[in-house]
Amino acid sequence: MAVKEIRVGLIGYKFMGKAHSNAYRQAPFFFPDIKARPVMKAICGRDKAAVTQVAQQYGWESVETSYRKLVQRDDIDLVDITAPGNWHTKMALAAAEAGKAVYCEKPLANNLADARLMLQAVRKAGVINVVNFNYRRLPAIQLARQLIEDGFVGTPYHWRACYLQDWIIDPDFPLVWRLDKRIAGSGSLGDLAAHSIDLAMFLLGDIASLASLEQTFITERPRLAETTGGLTAAAAKGKVKVAVDDAALFVCRFANGTTVGTFEATRFAAGHKNFNTFEINGSKGSIRFNLERMNELEVYDRSDPEGHQGFKTILTTDPSHPYMEGYWPPAHNIGYEHSFINVIHDLMNAMAQGKGLDPDFEQGVKVQAVLETVTKAAKSKKWEKVPQA
Amino acid sequence: MAVKEIRVGLIGYKFMGKAHSNAYRQAPFFFPDIKARPVMKAICGRDKAAVTQVAQQYGWESVETSYRKLVQRDDIDLVDITAPGNWHTKMALAAAEAGKAVYCEKPLANNLADARLMLQAVRKAGVINVVNFNYRRLPAIQLARQLIEDGFVGTPYHWRACYLQDWIIDPDFPLVWRLDKRIAGSGSLGDLAAHSIDLAMFLLGDIASLASLEQTFITERPRLAETTGGLTAAAAKGKVKVAVDDAALFVCRFANGTTVGTFEATRFAAGHKNFNTFEINGSKGSIRFNLERMNELEVYDRSDPEGHQGFKTILTTDPSHPYMEGYWPPAHNIGYEHSFINVIHDLMNAMAQGKGLDPDFEQGVKVQAVLETVTKAAKSKKWEKVPQA
Amino acid sequence: MAVKEIRVGLIGYKFMGKAHSNAYRQAPFFFPDIKARPVMKAICGRDKAAVTQVAQQYGWESVETSYRKLVQRDDIDLVDITAPGNWHTKMALAAAEAGKAVYCEKPLANNLADARLMLQAVRKAGVINVVNFNYRRLPAIQLARQLIEDGFVGTPYHWRACYLQDWIIDPDFPLVWRLDKRIAGSGSLGDLAAHSIDLAMFLLGDIASLASLEQTFITERPRLAETTGGLTAAAAKGKVKVAVDDAALFVCRFANGTTVGTFEATRFAAGHKNFNTFEINGSKGSIRFNLERMNELEVYDRSDPEGHQGFKTILTTDPSHPYMEGYWPPAHNIGYEHSFINVIHDLMNAMAQGKGLDPDFEQGVKVQAVLETVTKAAKSKKWEKVPQA
Amino acid sequence: MAVKEIRVGLIGYKFMGKAHSNAYRQAPFFFPDIKARPVMKAICGRDKAAVTQVAQQYGWESVETSYRKLVQRDDIDLVDITAPGNWHTKMALAAAEAGKAVYCEKPLANNLADARLMLQAVRKAGVINVVNFNYRRLPAIQLARQLIEDGFVGTPYHWRACYLQDWIIDPDFPLVWRLDKRIAGSGSLGDLAAHSIDLAMFLLGDIASLASLEQTFITERPRLAETTGGLTAAAAKGKVKVAVDDAALFVCRFANGTTVGTFEATRFAAGHKNFNTFEINGSKGSIRFNLERMNELEVYDRSDPEGHQGFKTILTTDPSHPYMEGYWPPAHNIGYEHSFINVIHDLMNAMAQGKGLDPDFEQGVKVQAVLETVTKAAKSKKWEKVPQA
Repeated sequence: MAVKEIRVGLIGYKFMGKAHSNAYRQAPFFFPDIKARPVMKAICGRDKAAVTQVAQQYGWESVETSYRKLVQRDDIDLVDITAPGNWHTKMALAAAEAGKAVYCEKPLANNLADARLMLQAVRKAGVINVVNFNYRRLPAIQLARQLIEDGFVGTPYHWRACYLQDWIIDPDFPLVWRLDKRIAGSGSLGDLAAHSIDLAMFLLGDIASLASLEQTFITERPRLAETTGGLTAAAAKGKVKVAVDDAALFVCRFANGTTVGTFEATRFAAGHKNFNTFEINGSKGSIRFNLERMNELEVYDRSDPEGHQGFKTILTTDPSHPYMEGYWPPAHNIGYEHSFINVIHDLMNAMAQGKGLDPDFEQGVKVQAVLETVTKAAKSKKWEKVPQA
Repeated sequence: MAVKEIRVGLIGYKFMGKAHSNAYRQAPFFFPDIKARPVMKAICGRDKAAVTQVAQQYGWESVETSYRKLVQRDDIDLVDITAPGNWHTKMALAAAEAGKAVYCEKPLANNLADARLMLQAVRKAGVINVVNFNYRRLPAIQLARQLIEDGFVGTPYHWRACYLQDWIIDPDFPLVWRLDKRIAGSGSLGDLAAHSIDLAMFLLGDIASLASLEQTFITERPRLAETTGGLTAAAAKGKVKVAVDDAALFVCRFANGTTVGTFEATRFAAGHKNFNTFEINGSKGSIRFNLERMNELEVYDRSDPEGHQGFKTILTTDPSHPYMEGYWPPAHNIGYEHSFINVIHDLMNAMAQGKGLDPDFEQGVKVQAVLETVTKAAKSKKWEKVPQA
Repeated sequence: MAVKEIRVGLIGYKFMGKAHSNAYRQAPFFFPDIKARPVMKAICGRDKAAVTQVAQQYGWESVETSYRKLVQRDDIDLVDITAPGNWHTKMALAAAEAGKAVYCEKPLANNLADARLMLQAVRKAGVINVVNFNYRRLPAIQLARQLIEDGFVGTPYHWRACYLQDWIIDPDFPLVWRLDKRIAGSGSLGDLAAHSIDLAMFLLGDIASLASLEQTFITERPRLAETTGGLTAAAAKGKVKVAVDDAALFVCRFANGTTVGTFEATRFAAGHKNFNTFEINGSKGSIRFNLERMNELEVYDRSDPEGHQGFKTILTTDPSHPYMEGYWPPAHNIGYEHSFINVIHDLMNAMAQGKGLDPDFEQGVKVQAVLETVTKAAKSKKWEKVPQA
Repeated sequence: MAVKEIRVGLIGYKFMGKAHSNAYRQAPFFFPDIKARPVMKAICGRDKAAVTQVAQQYGWESVETSYRKLVQRDDIDLVDITAPGNWHTKMALAAAEAGKAVYCEKPLANNLADARLMLQAVRKAGVINVVNFNYRRLPAIQLARQLIEDGFVGTPYHWRACYLQDWIIDPDFPLVWRLDKRIAGSGSLGDLAAHSIDLAMFLLGDIASLASLEQTFITERPRLAETTGGLTAAAAKGKVKVAVDDAALFVCRFANGTTVGTFEATRFAAGHKNFNTFEINGSKGSIRFNLERMNELEVYDRSDPEGHQGFKTILTTDPSHPYMEGYWPPAHNIGYEHSFINVIHDLMNAMAQGKGLDPDFEQGVKVQAVLETVTKAAKSKKWEKVPQA
């Protein structure tokens, strides 16, 4: 049987565009048995010169400057959206309307209403839809999931997540698009906490209610000279107001009725660059993870003999670990980019069979519902329930 | 000049009684220049046989079975209270009334009203009063404090504390006194979170407001056969209700208006035995500590040259580190018990000069106010302000 | 100016063949400013079906089954040798004779005499020659080198390297080619210690003399059914003799007259998968590295203020760190494969200017001289001097 | 039955004298069931004023200034020798002749001949004899021993020990007694390597042969103004020659015929204060230890399920761990001094039954034989066999 081909149109060409491009290039390299090969048909961006250059660098066959045109091309099966959040909804709606499978960066949208629109659109169109919470597909996270399904942690009592970065501590760091509420929708919340929330739900199920705070430590920043994402930073000279959160913290209860959780997302934790960590403590054992040491998973087994118990650091690089057979021998580590390759591997295999892939837009909406509740609770200064998707 | 003597009467003889006894024995051993020598006059407990045995083991000159009698003895200068929380108030009041200096285990009381009574009593009596937040006096914590005073962290943005233990995960673990609300007042909150709160206040100042949750994972436990602390466990056969929190979590804002914090205290974190940790992230640097590695402090300095930044693990065992000149050469580690010895060292030196010592009962009341607010907010499901001491 | 092209012919297509192929694919992806683009002209292996399959998977334009034919093709500029060690000499000689640049896997040869032949051949032919000690080009190692050049460690007193793996502990693991002396030349020595030796020389200079031991813990192993590398495992049924070292250990003195070193290489260290570590201790500071956490470098600075000294963990993923600008944001880690990409990046840039690249064959010979001295000293049971290259 | 008393006479009152004094004070405090109580009869030193002061500080009943007088006192059962190494032999001989049990600091003597004299003397006198390799009695080390006896590591392949300190890197650090060959006998070798050697033998048995190097990095140092240990530093003004090793390294084979080992001892490893570490790798598992984190033991179990293997950090502070029932709750860490308390606990219990305790002088001689072989091999530049005790 001939290997299928999935013809991809990618919107966006910067950080995420590069990570996605790499994943399409590399998935068939590492996984020769992949059931559908991605064909890198077209990359889309408004700056034709820039996008043309990266098209060559990344290996795309053609270039588009209008996403509307891209989604309507007959030779595109899958539309991949990595543009900033304020673009997600219109792009996803257009792609769905054009009958294309949609693969969208997280968070799904800049607010819950938009996310729901997107879910409705893909449902109505009956197209495959995936939101890119890529960390789910790290070997360590897949192992964590497997352990939990196997009962390793027993009844989960605690979830504890920190996603800490420090790249905007300097008050003179300008208002880039990720700090612009009109473009990014939120700050650390949608950028960082969204990942932690998805991991929590992937491993422990839905979040029911929460109390929170949001904080903006630096309330004004220099305007960025160049325009970004189609929006010009405030015309006023000098500084502009920061309207997004620098940090978002919350305590919560899960829908299972037992687990309690803490979440912390911040861009103001000096020394932490991409410190995406969580820990689960249950009646039988514990699991913890730190993205800065992404080839490791730490586990604690209460059923170990008395006096011989302790946290064990598993290098998740054995051939028996998820995805690792495609890569290198044990402890010949993989990196950040491989999380994306793993997603594309799974997405191609699913699409080869006409299937979608988790996390889908419904999950994207659920995460959005939690994000929106965090902001709501921060304002109301009360515990708030997370609404249904 | 002759070294002064401070004659001590100790109430309680179990875990804390042992730790305090050891501190009186050892302070002059390690610190020969101590300005007042503790004289271990009397130890007090209701079980005469038991207390007589430990008196010999620990080195106390005499035994009392009534705290009222103890506090009135002419040959006692300092009354040290390590009985369970429900006894603190009456004992401290009696000691103050008798004009004795009072040194009381934490938390100061089982509720804020009682704590305030104690503060009033010592103020009225004009006696020295100290609450034993012993971890303040670890070399690593003293170093953290010094760093903060020297501006190392700059503006503090984040406080993040976990105090995790796991000794009651087994549902068949009985309702010992620390799980008995009438005796202990609360569960993980007063036992564990109290330490974290005091450290936070010691390092960053007062806490202004918070949102919280409290959780009791195992709601019924076997009654304990023997009575403890003067109270008999429920007469009913079989299981008794657990009325204290197994875990307490909160997010907060500090009084400085900038710092936001998370606190988590639990006895249900499998794998963590005495995992008393915190981290501070500020505009200039970060500091973190873990009691399970109590001879270490980790620091991150944003002013290190670009590309050479990272968390640095300081072994706080050099002679230049607080208290360490009294002990052993570098990296010949000290242990848990030395935190108590350090307190007694400082207390003796202070009393030799007729002075009190921080943290005093006022600080004990402040911590109690935070604890009470945690419980209040857990019930109200709203952000609550911490009342004044 | 048009970007140059370097047309590559690769010999070997398994583990190393895959790693090298990936590097050619990815170097221009991550480093668009690369001064010469590798063109993946031909891949060579004796099993036509197998090599044809990977040619497609890896992206090679054509296939050869004879290395002699490959090296003579007019459309090849660079011959890349990743075949087992017993093939290196004849392949390199043929490539040099054909006037091709030669890039050879480590160790350069299976013995010193062969390595010297290779050096003579490339010198005579005047062709660019490189031996692939890829770990040199990890950001952490480059940072270590820079620190040493800047005087960070001062006078180096100690070198301490362990390269520990555990993949052949099982006595029933068969005699694969890496355990076959006729193919691999040696065991842990050439495979693992060679890397440590090259790193030591890269950072501290030549090794002068040493005392050693070699040990084969499992002296007989099952023969491997299939033939490998052109040689058939012993015809005798059942087990075959293991003629290579399972572990090689030595203490040494460096040519600088001051530094003393220990090296340990083994495939019998349970729990260590690719634990390639070293530490340098000098008069001013220390540096340590562990390949299992390859995005980190630990440093200790004696000039830090008293009481504030400690080992600092630098995440070597800032844009300011070598090569990292081509990859991802800070702490979005790179992996094992990126060490190869970095080599190709540097090799292409060098060849674009007609230059060679360190480590060259001369360094390959020097490492071989140390390896040979380890074996000699293990037999003589005496300290032995390392011969000149 | 009345608890026995063992009346102790201690020679030496500085670092080790303090550590031993503390152990006698504290053993009955932590272990009330101890079968014999140490009575702190007399402490001996030549400086009467100094020793009188510490006698009071440490709790000794009386003072002697002549060791000859001390060993002959009728009220002394056990002579404890903590004077520098050049005094051990004459003191032990005198004590043995006087029929006293002898407990001697390590290394047993400054050379093998002296050590053998001591062994002969205690054998002839039939007195209890113990050499103080205190680290054996840390809970983590006892656990390691138990694991090995239980077959946890299987066939041991590798031993790897580093004992690293850094207190004499400064070339202006003076020639204190530990650097004076006449007093200390050797440098890092007897001070540090002796501990590693004893641990290796405790866990894996005798060492058969070795190759080594010794290095003195700083060959001249300022003379120390004050005289120490009864010897005056060189009369010449200015600097004096350093005659001891700053570092000693060796590779070895164990008597079991299988295990190979590396040892490294140095006082020139910047950043390491008391980094006494070892690792054992065997056919079934691995064990590693680091004195700087002395409440932890790391273990790796090859029989863990595939994909779930990893190094596990055991906190050796559970009541089930050796000695810990006497101390504090889990993870309420013990420190350096408790290793000495554990020795005294075991020694008192043994002597209560008229028994001796391992490690005895025979083991002390065996360690000395290894030390002497290290020096011999460093000079001969050949592998040397370790002589019989």
